Amino acid sequence: MKKIDHVAIAVADLDAAESAYRDVMELEWEGREEVTGQKVMASIFNIGECRIELISPTSDESPIAGFIQKKGSGLHHICFEVDDIEAEMVKLKAKGARLLNETPAEGVGGSRVAFLHPKSGAGVLIELTVKGK
Amino acid sequence: MKKIDHVAIAVADLDAAESAYRDVMELEWEGREEVTGQKVMASIFNIGECRIELISPTSDESPIAGFIQKKGSGLHHICFEVDDIEAEMVKLKAKGARLLNETPAEGVGGSRVAFLHPKSGAGVLIELTVKGK
Repeated sequence: MKKIDHVAIAVADLDAAESAYRDVMELEWEGREEVTGQKVMASIFNIGECRIELISPTSDESPIAGFIQKKGSGLHHICFEVDDIEAEMVKLKAKGARLLNETPAEGVGGSRVAFLHPKSGAGVLIELTVKGK
Repeated sequence: MKKIDHVAIAVADLDAAESAYRDVMELEWEGREEVTGQKVMASIFNIGECRIELISPTSDESPIAGFIQKKGSGLHHICFEVDDIEAEMVKLKAKGARLLNETPAEGVGGSRVAFLHPKSGAGVLIELTVKGK
């Protein structure tokens, strides 16, 4: 794991959340990006080498809609950047971690991603990402 | 806000959580540190310019014990490093943010910290920290 790529926060009201992080806390705002696969709109902030992503469902069928209904707005997952996602997945599996993907899925901006089950992250959903290619 | 200082994860079973992040995910483990003010034991990992802190209650009276009882193990807060915590607190207050401290409290390793109410962080508890002094 090279670094924290981003921390994702599930939010019911994207405009209000964006205002809190951009206008009140004054984090550097990059803009919005729709992630159609997850049925969410993401609002992205840069902070040091990491990003904060506010993610808000664009449909009731989004997994994020279910999360918010159960738990309310709040921290959703951490994403770690890795160098070689296939090698990392093989290693994690061999050590008994439970992966939610058999193979990497397509992520934002040409990245590839995979998720670890919260049971393997002490209750936290962990995403792995590798840039580009 | 300069960078993410750390992301804190509340855990019921510190040994098991430590093993997941150290032995399975292979994050760089720094060690444990007791935070008596919060009645928690913290297990600290370095990743890039940030840290992951696993925090586990050492007493039923710890605020973390209440969190775990209500929500289970999971993401607890994000901490941003700032240059001037007093100036940041004045600015946030002027912009209508709700602070949980009137003045900075003593944090780990001689740092000073303050918390923003989750209502001001889109459902997320936000900690501010300034190093040294």
